[in-house]
Amino acid sequence: MTIKVVVLYTQPEDPEAFDQQYLGVHMPMVREIPGLERAESGRIFAAADGGEKTYYRIAELYFDGQDALNAGLGSEQGKAVTADYAKIAPPGSRLFIASVDD
Amino acid sequence: MTIKVVVLYTQPEDPEAFDQQYLGVHMPMVREIPGLERAESGRIFAAADGGEKTYYRIAELYFDGQDALNAGLGSEQGKAVTADYAKIAPPGSRLFIASVDD
Repeated sequence: MTIKVVVLYTQPEDPEAFDQQYLGVHMPMVREIPGLERAESGRIFAAADGGEKTYYRIAELYFDGQDALNAGLGSEQGKAVTADYAKIAPPGSRLFIASVDD
Repeated sequence: MTIKVVVLYTQPEDPEAFDQQYLGVHMPMVREIPGLERAESGRIFAAADGGEKTYYRIAELYFDGQDALNAGLGSEQGKAVTADYAKIAPPGSRLFIASVDD
């Protein structure tokens, strides 16, 4: 079963500086996590429900099951990514784990 | 450029009944939206940040650009899906539009 980490970043103070760090440093680190099957990131540019633009970015990290996810995030690279996330994520950013439907 | 609708469903009162309606009726309707490239849905089962399990489900609908998305959601099928979303989405559910990074 495919499992994904879903990351929701709230609005950064300086979007341009955030994107530079995020796309130039953070995502390349993410792509080196052992066992990672795929990573997808995107910039949220509209709230289609007319509500608040609560989140600025979404990212998803795909793994082949919970064991692979645990091993990947528990690795040295995974720990480095987690530490970098804590450094760059604006307050209120969220981290969820989801099972992908067939 | 790939554009996606990101849907975040909050916790339903009856998760089992929700899933039955969602997977059995709603997602099959979604897959018939004209111009839809891909749809992915998943069940959020953990908040990896130790915070609140704000969302119960995430879904993403992929289109090849904003025009395709507008055409798809503006179609009869798109309108039927939007109406069904309004019927099933628990209060506080969110709808965002994001551009997918290369």
